[in-house]
Amino acid sequence: MTPADFAAVMSDNDAPFAPPGSTQEVEEGRVLMPKFDADGLVTCVATDAASGDVLMVAHMNARALERTIATGEAHYFSRSRQTLWRKGETSGHVQRVVEMRMDCDQDAIWIRVEQVGAACHTGRKSCFYRRIEGGEGGARLVFVDAERLFDPNAVYRK
Amino acid sequence: MTPADFAAVMSDNDAPFAPPGSTQEVEEGRVLMPKFDADGLVTCVATDAASGDVLMVAHMNARALERTIATGEAHYFSRSRQTLWRKGETSGHVQRVVEMRMDCDQDAIWIRVEQVGAACHTGRKSCFYRRIEGGEGGARLVFVDAERLFDPNAVYRK
Repeated sequence: MTPADFAAVMSDNDAPFAPPGSTQEVEEGRVLMPKFDADGLVTCVATDAASGDVLMVAHMNARALERTIATGEAHYFSRSRQTLWRKGETSGHVQRVVEMRMDCDQDAIWIRVEQVGAACHTGRKSCFYRRIEGGEGGARLVFVDAERLFDPNAVYRK
Repeated sequence: MTPADFAAVMSDNDAPFAPPGSTQEVEEGRVLMPKFDADGLVTCVATDAASGDVLMVAHMNARALERTIATGEAHYFSRSRQTLWRKGETSGHVQRVVEMRMDCDQDAIWIRVEQVGAACHTGRKSCFYRRIEGGEGGARLVFVDAERLFDPNAVYRK
């Protein structure tokens, strides 16, 4: 059965991954055994393969992880819409995966991507367009790298 | 009242931040209004200020965020121990914060840090020491950048 065949018969809730094993197996093993949380999700950090900047933080369910591995394009699970979400399916701003990494306890994934257009729904390249600065009167946000690469009202207009 | 005074009278559950406002205020404002989840946490990604590599993904509650801003050293909330956790308090492997960024919907933070020693409890510089590789027989993990910089059995021995 090819990955494509497998994906075709797999429902959104099927998990084609091994269940988490012992700490030794999870941390030092070569078997992918993602530790999905109570909502069935792992955290995913996407960084720009060229600049190294963090573009966004999102979540993957088993289906999104399987699709990302199989297609080489980032898929997430939208918690607000409760559905599988191929990044860029509306905007065209897809993420081509250059490398995927798993963390020690297998509950977080790091993907290095080639970002087409911009990652953030506000039109910025990265979602992290504000610096947190402390100070006398308390912390505040300062806009940096906040240029809009597209007009969200035009791209997401229904 | 100085930040230190403020911290001294603040209990672990106090949140010295504005509550999340409108989408416009959250996404385009200069006021820090973290969107803590049902457990009172935001996600935090720490990257190496020199290499750009993702070192770890962890969580901050209001107290950890306040302490990180006030001290310039990364503090997290340990979900397993349910307590505030100054990174490196046991191992000495502290993280000096070079820059903090907030994301568009204010539920994720990116910190660029100078990592003393190694970030991962397994002894590696980064928690992401395994690549996810797809293929015919399904996905597997391949060790990369997995050299141990310290012996966890020696560092964490009680």
